Amino acid sequence: MQGALHELFLDELRDLYSAEQQLTKALPKMAKAASHPQLVQAFESHLKETEGHVKRLEDAFTALGEKPDGEKCEAMEGLIKEGSALIDRKGDLPDAVLDAGLIAAAQKVEHYEIASYGTVITWSTLMNHDEVTELLTETIAEEEAADDKLTMLAENGINESAMAGSV
Amino acid sequence: MQGALHELFLDELRDLYSAEQQLTKALPKMAKAASHPQLVQAFESHLKETEGHVKRLEDAFTALGEKPDGEKCEAMEGLIKEGSALIDRKGDLPDAVLDAGLIAAAQKVEHYEIASYGTVITWSTLMNHDEVTELLTETIAEEEAADDKLTMLAENGINESAMAGSV
Repeated sequence: MQGALHELFLDELRDLYSAEQQLTKALPKMAKAASHPQLVQAFESHLKETEGHVKRLEDAFTALGEKPDGEKCEAMEGLIKEGSALIDRKGDLPDAVLDAGLIAAAQKVEHYEIASYGTVITWSTLMNHDEVTELLTETIAEEEAADDKLTMLAENGINESAMAGSV
Repeated sequence: MQGALHELFLDELRDLYSAEQQLTKALPKMAKAASHPQLVQAFESHLKETEGHVKRLEDAFTALGEKPDGEKCEAMEGLIKEGSALIDRKGDLPDAVLDAGLIAAAQKVEHYEIASYGTVITWSTLMNHDEVTELLTETIAEEEAADDKLTMLAENGINESAMAGSV
């Protein structure tokens, strides 16, 4: 018999599954709204990774003998709404300022995911779901790398351009 | 004249102001739902800190000659809804499992705030708002410490109890 922590673990995985799926729809819009070529590329390559995260979660559910369907992740819905509100300002904001805002929005998303994956990895390890732990650990490493990449892009040019272009 | 990046900076600060205010209402409910005495205490002491974060944001707006009113932060609304859904399960879930879930929910909130404060600190530094940078830096240090405290509580007993009590 599986216990209550296992149920909570499945709930968190379903929440992440919804979050990652929502993100696969949001990232192409972010890539389209971005101007800096490296930022466009970062969003596009993170889209490919995110599709892989969806697949890994499906594999995790298979390994657990469960189905991934669940409720919509409301936190990710809110995060994406904030990004959409920013995208709607394309044309009104200088390109580099919009880019700086898109980075901020994307980093909130990455931090949300890092916190969630951190929790499920801890629980998965505790419950000895080794295969699932491995899948989730591969994903969190990509989320952390994506976050670092965004910081690097912000610090190596986009923020300065946003300053210069915004006065 | 202030530029577009400055406007975006103010938007982010207003978003954080809404987020922190929402959190002052959610934390007492989380403290009430928690069972482990140190977790109850962690939520209670973070409530006091969060009230301080609201005050610091008000001081930041004063320093910038602006008002803090703004739209409701939808991301924090979604994060809090997830926590509330968990609190509603009090009584159905073993105490330690609910505690583990509350820690997970709270860490998502902390990560959201850390990402947001990280962005506004970068922008504030870039625009030489030294007084504001200092206020925001004090807050992010407390958010990071709160996140670490939650990890420590999870790892030093709550997760193990959740395992033991959940089968």
